[in-house]
Amino acid sequence: MSETFLAEIREQPEALRRLVEARAEVEAVARALAERGVQEVRLVGHGSSDAAASYGVYAFGLLPGWTAFRDSISLSTYYRAELDFSRSAVIALSQSGRTPDVVAYVCHARERGALTIAVTNEPQSELASAAEWTLPLHAGEERAVAASKTLLNTFALLGLLAGVVAGRGEEVADGLNVCATLIAEALPDLEEAVAPLAITFAYVGRMYVIGRGIEFGTAREVALKLTETCRIAAEPVTSTDLSHGPIAAVDAMFPVWTIASRDESLPALLAAAALAKKAGATLVASGNAAAEVADAECWLPVPEAPLAVLSPLLSLVPGQLFAAALSQAKGLNADEPAGLTKVTLAE
Amino acid sequence: MSETFLAEIREQPEALRRLVEARAEVEAVARALAERGVQEVRLVGHGSSDAAASYGVYAFGLLPGWTAFRDSISLSTYYRAELDFSRSAVIALSQSGRTPDVVAYVCHARERGALTIAVTNEPQSELASAAEWTLPLHAGEERAVAASKTLLNTFALLGLLAGVVAGRGEEVADGLNVCATLIAEALPDLEEAVAPLAITFAYVGRMYVIGRGIEFGTAREVALKLTETCRIAAEPVTSTDLSHGPIAAVDAMFPVWTIASRDESLPALLAAAALAKKAGATLVASGNAAAEVADAECWLPVPEAPLAVLSPLLSLVPGQLFAAALSQAKGLNADEPAGLTKVTLAE
Repeated sequence: MSETFLAEIREQPEALRRLVEARAEVEAVARALAERGVQEVRLVGHGSSDAAASYGVYAFGLLPGWTAFRDSISLSTYYRAELDFSRSAVIALSQSGRTPDVVAYVCHARERGALTIAVTNEPQSELASAAEWTLPLHAGEERAVAASKTLLNTFALLGLLAGVVAGRGEEVADGLNVCATLIAEALPDLEEAVAPLAITFAYVGRMYVIGRGIEFGTAREVALKLTETCRIAAEPVTSTDLSHGPIAAVDAMFPVWTIASRDESLPALLAAAALAKKAGATLVASGNAAAEVADAECWLPVPEAPLAVLSPLLSLVPGQLFAAALSQAKGLNADEPAGLTKVTLAE
Repeated sequence: MSETFLAEIREQPEALRRLVEARAEVEAVARALAERGVQEVRLVGHGSSDAAASYGVYAFGLLPGWTAFRDSISLSTYYRAELDFSRSAVIALSQSGRTPDVVAYVCHARERGALTIAVTNEPQSELASAAEWTLPLHAGEERAVAASKTLLNTFALLGLLAGVVAGRGEEVADGLNVCATLIAEALPDLEEAVAPLAITFAYVGRMYVIGRGIEFGTAREVALKLTETCRIAAEPVTSTDLSHGPIAAVDAMFPVWTIASRDESLPALLAAAALAKKAGATLVASGNAAAEVADAECWLPVPEAPLAVLSPLLSLVPGQLFAAALSQAKGLNADEPAGLTKVTLAE
């Protein structure tokens, strides 16, 4: 019942390569940013797109050294706050291009002087019309309600734009192509590894997903995917925030999914994993440094990305596959989860 | 077993008045911000302090019309990203003043030209030494591990600073004093109302707490308090984000706590509550517009604040009292929750 979702997860390497081929579009936007003297990026989106926005904060911070942040949508759309957008670029993320308050935010920000960029899989959408620039995701039609290839390409597009802005466009584009190959190679083993794990987790009602730094967006996306496709109350927390409260709720019935990637934040992630283990949690270790999570009950390692900043593209995949397998094991339908539609029109 | 936590919740009106009396300190910082030409605020903190940071985004956006955002700590502390802090003020929130990565972030930001402000209950702490300016919380000693009066005063201090910056310091200070009186008056009825509710919720394992706009910080704090004191997997989501995924997990075993305050975002909150109800959730309605949440199973209304931007000071209280009552009902100890200490030293 989750066949479409699974098929689209498998299509990701191909979708990713299509995006890289269209990089001239990204280069044009980067020139516009330079001409306008923009040095600050406001990212907006809901759901998976907001998880991608978390990744965008790191992509822009690490590659060109720009300040990027997830902006409040409601300050502009509900409260009409008198904010100064003149030095800002807005990157509005919506796979469907129809999320109403994201469209409204873009109109407001554009009127107030922001350079506005729509990132969407639907270049004919309302969002694309509202924004000055549009960057299509080139993911191809996505039919499962649970997003996979549009989400992966949103991460990739943010990385690519940040790379081009930093004068490292070629390096990032090459890196993304390598990621596409690595994902394609890793998929069969990962699909095999998640199957028995899914059966063990069939009765899990709640989980934490921890990641730090560039992997926090991944943690947010994996948690959301488990929530919407498997009806688990899965909450993303940074490894540091885990010890500021949530750790008190952890016990043997509360698995913790860890995303361990090799970078400067890894020691903090490992310390948080140890804390969760001490509290009795079952640990799942994913990421390219999964092997370093001591005492995990299972490991879903992925290959190292050619650039550390691209690690999330690989780290996302085990979470997607696990969500597909677990929704199957629970008799749920990831293609059309209860209560969700492909286009969310709620304000 | 949660007596200290409850006693400190009751001390909040007094703590709030002490903060308002010390407003000359806030005025001095506002002058420094004006002299430096700062128009952008980076907020950092973990746990409850990070919930307060969410409120700060709205306080600065609505009162002086400044862009404020919750900055990434790890970009600076782990990755040493080359960000430009020269136009920024940093407001670092830590009740203990000892959160290691917040201290490290402040040192980094100050070196790179930010105007740094420590907001802490410990004016002799490391954080206070690291920052150029210190704004003490004046909450008095807080002994329960679960924060209450330091948290309420953090919200209040952010509102007051934003008000003074906007030239509305007197109005906000007067408003805070009125809030202190309203909280004192509301406490006895609220304490009575949460007691039977706590017994009903003794077996709840997971919840969503929804709020939007200025009440999103409140939702984050209430969810965290329920998690740490009652071992509930309580996740905060904006009313809009609820329909972008989490709604799929909601059923009759999954209560949803709603924070409904009378402002421009109320219709979105009510729509999300209706969606949760349709999915079978038990609704708890709090906030000053609680009565408008149709079909809620119980209501914990609070008085309207004299200024809409101060509503969260009142909305926080039912969540605190409910957490205290529920932790009692479950035989847990909110004064010293398992796995937590008053000062969190995890990086």
